[in-house]
Amino acid sequence: MILDIISKKANNYELTKEELETILLGYLNDEVKDYQMSAFLMAICINDMSDSEVFALTDIFIKSGDILDLSFIDKIKVDKHSTGGVGDKTTLIVAPLVASCGVPVIKMSGRGLGYTGGTIDKLESIPGFKVDLTEEEIKKQAQDIGIVITSQTKDLAPLDKKVYALRDVTATTNSIPLIASSIMSKKIAGGADKIVIDIKVGNGALIKTIEEAERLSSLLIKIGTYYQKEVRTVISNMDRPLGHNIGNKLEVIEALDVLKGNAKGELLDLSLKLASEMVSLGKEISEKKAREEVVENLENGKALNKFLEFVKYQHGNIDKLEVDAKVYNIKANKNGILKDINALAIAKLSEKLGAGRKDKDDKIDYNAGIVIKKEIGDKIKEGDILASLYTNIDNKEFNLERIFEIS
Amino acid sequence: MILDIISKKANNYELTKEELETILLGYLNDEVKDYQMSAFLMAICINDMSDSEVFALTDIFIKSGDILDLSFIDKIKVDKHSTGGVGDKTTLIVAPLVASCGVPVIKMSGRGLGYTGGTIDKLESIPGFKVDLTEEEIKKQAQDIGIVITSQTKDLAPLDKKVYALRDVTATTNSIPLIASSIMSKKIAGGADKIVIDIKVGNGALIKTIEEAERLSSLLIKIGTYYQKEVRTVISNMDRPLGHNIGNKLEVIEALDVLKGNAKGELLDLSLKLASEMVSLGKEISEKKAREEVVENLENGKALNKFLEFVKYQHGNIDKLEVDAKVYNIKANKNGILKDINALAIAKLSEKLGAGRKDKDDKIDYNAGIVIKKEIGDKIKEGDILASLYTNIDNKEFNLERIFEIS
Repeated sequence: MILDIISKKANNYELTKEELETILLGYLNDEVKDYQMSAFLMAICINDMSDSEVFALTDIFIKSGDILDLSFIDKIKVDKHSTGGVGDKTTLIVAPLVASCGVPVIKMSGRGLGYTGGTIDKLESIPGFKVDLTEEEIKKQAQDIGIVITSQTKDLAPLDKKVYALRDVTATTNSIPLIASSIMSKKIAGGADKIVIDIKVGNGALIKTIEEAERLSSLLIKIGTYYQKEVRTVISNMDRPLGHNIGNKLEVIEALDVLKGNAKGELLDLSLKLASEMVSLGKEISEKKAREEVVENLENGKALNKFLEFVKYQHGNIDKLEVDAKVYNIKANKNGILKDINALAIAKLSEKLGAGRKDKDDKIDYNAGIVIKKEIGDKIKEGDILASLYTNIDNKEFNLERIFEIS
Repeated sequence: MILDIISKKANNYELTKEELETILLGYLNDEVKDYQMSAFLMAICINDMSDSEVFALTDIFIKSGDILDLSFIDKIKVDKHSTGGVGDKTTLIVAPLVASCGVPVIKMSGRGLGYTGGTIDKLESIPGFKVDLTEEEIKKQAQDIGIVITSQTKDLAPLDKKVYALRDVTATTNSIPLIASSIMSKKIAGGADKIVIDIKVGNGALIKTIEEAERLSSLLIKIGTYYQKEVRTVISNMDRPLGHNIGNKLEVIEALDVLKGNAKGELLDLSLKLASEMVSLGKEISEKKAREEVVENLENGKALNKFLEFVKYQHGNIDKLEVDAKVYNIKANKNGILKDINALAIAKLSEKLGAGRKDKDDKIDYNAGIVIKKEIGDKIKEGDILASLYTNIDNKEFNLERIFEIS
């Protein structure tokens, strides 16, 4: 029976919802084995899925666990998701921006697996910050200050989590329908009414080409329509890291800088774009009008104050945000123009410095990371500091090749 | 690294021999996990393999274990392989036929996994028959009587065995390059100089279409050429069972009947064809001339005597070949012409009666099986006995639908 379902997908026939349920719920309760699921996932990666298969898969993921009820807030709940990039700390900037405009942000976030930490890791790098709130605490905080970011209290889409972990070790991550159903099941189980999704494209991202990004975008919107949840997508570049700082505490510091109005460039632009889309959805106003509100609240300090209020409410002590690590500077070995900064190479380096985790039980060094000192297009002289590395690991033999391209 | 190799195949690029070695030898020593190998096998099933990939894979399988040295016999060693079918007892007929013509047959055979037993199971159903010969015994018997059939003494292509077991439970059996490399690695490691391969096609076989059978035939011959081993293939039908008897002891009885000259039809025809090809290869004579020798030795009883000599040499007592089981008759429920006998349905029924094993540790009931009493095209009257079932299982509720088609 299970083998018949796998064969059917391998032979490129469309599966019914019942067939998808049989194999996936079988996997959830360990009747279908890892090696059978991975063969099935590979068949999906190569043969793709029809829209109705994707809808069915998303539904099965959602129903595998709890569904968060945020109805105690009578406003439109807008969530944000990023497909993941190097130096992506936009949530830390966008959430207070949006909340300061009166659109509630209640976000369940995860820890990172891979080269860098997730939003929860970044917040936890703030001394005292509490990430595991109870349902009562979430409710009260949402009503009091309109912004909550917490680790998952409930078991949202556990089947997606199990499948995702297997995809990670079987070269089956790179499938648009699998990515789309994974994202949407978590967001819908998380109780969002509307969703803004930042699709990262480039060498430092899962999605490598614009064509794939557009296919993913269209599929995310279709799934949203199926569930009557408005979805907007933003496609952003991930050939280079986003912003200057990579590493958990260093990223909080940079987010703070952006909220203080001290930053320009891609990170600011993308944060404003995402926040504007969220406010536009939450208040049902045009993106142009939403953007005016967002920019105003950045400039008048309301977004910064909302961030500080939020950190304080969750017991974080932002004044104690010191990076405790040894610093090594990377210097240019020739004159020229900085042509490129390789996001994937930076990500791998940041993991080596201690900022990421390979296994879910690995410990992250919140102090570890990289600060990039130069911008693309800058004139570089031999001996200039290109980046500073922060680490507590003694081995200083890091591979710095192919990170900075000077010519 | 492993994930890169899996991805490369998933994206339909050709793998180098080094890459194939990395993932396959990694799997042999448990560094590559079952769930990774099954994803990789599924990618091969869907994206196929180039000829050089198949040669490399075959080579890796062969070198993963022992290679049998049959050089103590100074004649050409011809082996025979069947891709597997229901009621296929041709080895029991062909081996003594060929040996009686002076072409040595030294065959390592396996136990069956699936609906019916393998050649070793069939031989073991003869009381006293010894299937586990030592190397010294094999050598002596080959020199004395020119025919040996034994279970594997050495560890031939253990990697193929490990991969095959995984394919069986992950719906990745149906791949021409995987089937071809699996067959050829075992035969070459088994020390054959030349090989005759019976490719079964039809609903009761792994290969369902003539096109696939032809592709497999051509690939087997190519691999043979690569190893300088002449390969001949015979494509034969497996929509219906081969012969009348299915089940281990019942098949020995039918083989004996053929050798006694008491049988006609497909089973006899195919046995003569395979034996003629083997004698032709072994004596380097035309198939026509070989066929004359084979038919002569069937008619003059030399083949039968060789079989009896062989069974006796391996301590089997052919006179004690009684089927010890309860018999249930399947009767026709209408008048008409027998249009079809479904091989797959017969196979499943024979397993239910106790003649096969699902797991390698399951015990087979050598007495269990089916004797088909009617031929395709026969006029059937309601109440006629279509088949007799032999079983020691008490549950008589067997599903007899879709086995016999009368119209």
